[in-house]
Amino acid sequence: MKEEKRPEWVPIEQSEAFASTIMDGTKPPFPENPPIKKRNISVEELVQGVKCNDRAFLAQAITLIESNAQKHKDKAQQLLKLLLPDTGKSIRIGITGVPGAGKSTFIEAFGTMLCEQGYKVAVLAIDPSSTLTRGSILGDKTRMERLIQQKNAFVRPSPSGGALGGVNRRTRETMLLCEAAGYNVIIVETVGVGQSEGMVRDMVDFFLLLTLTGAGDELQGIKRGILELTDAILINKADGENKVQALQTASLYTRMAHVFQPITDGWTVNISTCSALLGEGITEFWQTVRMFEAETKSSGVFEQRRLQQQKKWLYTSIREELEQRFFSQPEMRAHIFACERDILQGKKTVTTAVAELLTYYEAL
Amino acid sequence: MKEEKRPEWVPIEQSEAFASTIMDGTKPPFPENPPIKKRNISVEELVQGVKCNDRAFLAQAITLIESNAQKHKDKAQQLLKLLLPDTGKSIRIGITGVPGAGKSTFIEAFGTMLCEQGYKVAVLAIDPSSTLTRGSILGDKTRMERLIQQKNAFVRPSPSGGALGGVNRRTRETMLLCEAAGYNVIIVETVGVGQSEGMVRDMVDFFLLLTLTGAGDELQGIKRGILELTDAILINKADGENKVQALQTASLYTRMAHVFQPITDGWTVNISTCSALLGEGITEFWQTVRMFEAETKSSGVFEQRRLQQQKKWLYTSIREELEQRFFSQPEMRAHIFACERDILQGKKTVTTAVAELLTYYEAL
Repeated sequence: MKEEKRPEWVPIEQSEAFASTIMDGTKPPFPENPPIKKRNISVEELVQGVKCNDRAFLAQAITLIESNAQKHKDKAQQLLKLLLPDTGKSIRIGITGVPGAGKSTFIEAFGTMLCEQGYKVAVLAIDPSSTLTRGSILGDKTRMERLIQQKNAFVRPSPSGGALGGVNRRTRETMLLCEAAGYNVIIVETVGVGQSEGMVRDMVDFFLLLTLTGAGDELQGIKRGILELTDAILINKADGENKVQALQTASLYTRMAHVFQPITDGWTVNISTCSALLGEGITEFWQTVRMFEAETKSSGVFEQRRLQQQKKWLYTSIREELEQRFFSQPEMRAHIFACERDILQGKKTVTTAVAELLTYYEAL
Repeated sequence: MKEEKRPEWVPIEQSEAFASTIMDGTKPPFPENPPIKKRNISVEELVQGVKCNDRAFLAQAITLIESNAQKHKDKAQQLLKLLLPDTGKSIRIGITGVPGAGKSTFIEAFGTMLCEQGYKVAVLAIDPSSTLTRGSILGDKTRMERLIQQKNAFVRPSPSGGALGGVNRRTRETMLLCEAAGYNVIIVETVGVGQSEGMVRDMVDFFLLLTLTGAGDELQGIKRGILELTDAILINKADGENKVQALQTASLYTRMAHVFQPITDGWTVNISTCSALLGEGITEFWQTVRMFEAETKSSGVFEQRRLQQQKKWLYTSIREELEQRFFSQPEMRAHIFACERDILQGKKTVTTAVAELLTYYEAL
């Protein structure tokens, strides 16, 4: 179990929940100052703790989900199964954008506003690039200091390490835990490395690209395929001298948006400007999300997407597991490399190589 | 073995090749009027026949590659292995565009021009949607009547039927056969269903999107992710009243092109108009392709991509084969569907389902 670097903050709900649990006649889920790191907590205790939105228990539950030990995995799945009925009742928002687009500032402004309006906001930050350096994650965390201090906010950095498949599973399951804990706006942030945007698109209801103002070269950085995944594009830093150019960029994007099929049936990609620094355009963005939610829920597209995401996750996970078992076999590696070499030297066809490799694998 | 619907045309090279083979002292690859459909041709005969660009043998070899019978598969791989040293010496051009964009007319004009300049042109049409109806394929074929009559052209419809993985393998291997037969411009056409553009992008050097003139609604049809795969965009039907609008569309695309990272290092997406009907812009397109070839060959990007494509094909094929074996197990289907149902009803987590399915599969 990892140590939490941030001091545990005790939310007001905890004591209330604690009291109501006692009044229900059930066993209190935790002692007043739980030394939960020290002892082995039961699945039932975790279920109660998460449901009461006790952050210490939620953090414990997430740590369980992130663990690679088999006994933790089993326990995590029991926990999730028990919590499943309490999941799904949030709006899930994905946010992507290159480093420097101002994602942290935006999420801080957006999340704080929502908390002040009474929403409970969980922010999950995915950064597959940070497998080696935990630095950027902690950086992210400290950058959202205002948000972290909100009693209705929960900020969790990416479960670092491991393949994308692992990050995928852990982020989705963490999202479910947060929902069970009562968070009703889940923000999944990605820095846009590798296939992470597609992965996040597949786990959220609404997908935002936060980008920068400017024309020509400045825009070159937009990653292939991102524009077509979005439900909204916000051109950030539309303040001061940047404002005019930001509006021009918005107009270009609006014309471009007509070129693409929208990712969400019946929804036209919303393109606006904002200034996360000055807090401008944040309220409007939330109105857009609410309008999106209302429209897609009334058309059935919202529910349809959730079901498809569930199904797709099953099939994607099967594929990932099959691959993982194949490619992680130490005996296979040398064979795969030899085949690769022979193919590149024109000595073997791909079809022959694949047939040989599979035969070898199945005989293992 | 399927019957070729088109009467076999005997190219002039055949008799020359035949003569030279005899002069070499080797066994003639075929009798004067080979009843090749009736007898069992050896791999060596096929190798000779393909190398001499005998279309009857080339067609036979392709049919062998398309066959699902194990003995044909083995023979096809032997054949390919022997031909590998003769492959790779063409420029491979992928062409996509929605139905109605004028792909057939364009390919006919482009291919005929190349043949008249002395190039040997092979056109492979991929249409995964035509698994059930061979109609569209034959339609395609008859639509390129002028090209088919060129002695230097070879037009082959998509190997229909089967999963995308199968289409992928067969198209790539057919491309290799055509190269071994001396075709030096290979055009792979796709109607853009499912993931076929990504697949074609991964097997060609240069990728063209052929699209239509018009603004706003008319452009809605452009598929997500296609623009970012292209090395060139040609706005077709830029004739008569359409011309002005085509130029405007080209200007919009040019601005959009600056937004995306180019798919080919060091190459800026080329955007022009053409009229396949009037034969305008065809010569210019070929100049673009030649310039692309020269630049990418001198920078090393051309060779690098070919190597990466080979490697990627190996890994993609392994994945496809693993999946195919898993999902095609009749015993698995009921289990997968049951898991899917339980997940959608919130009774089971995806992670648990995947673990159960894999355990069951490995015990089979």
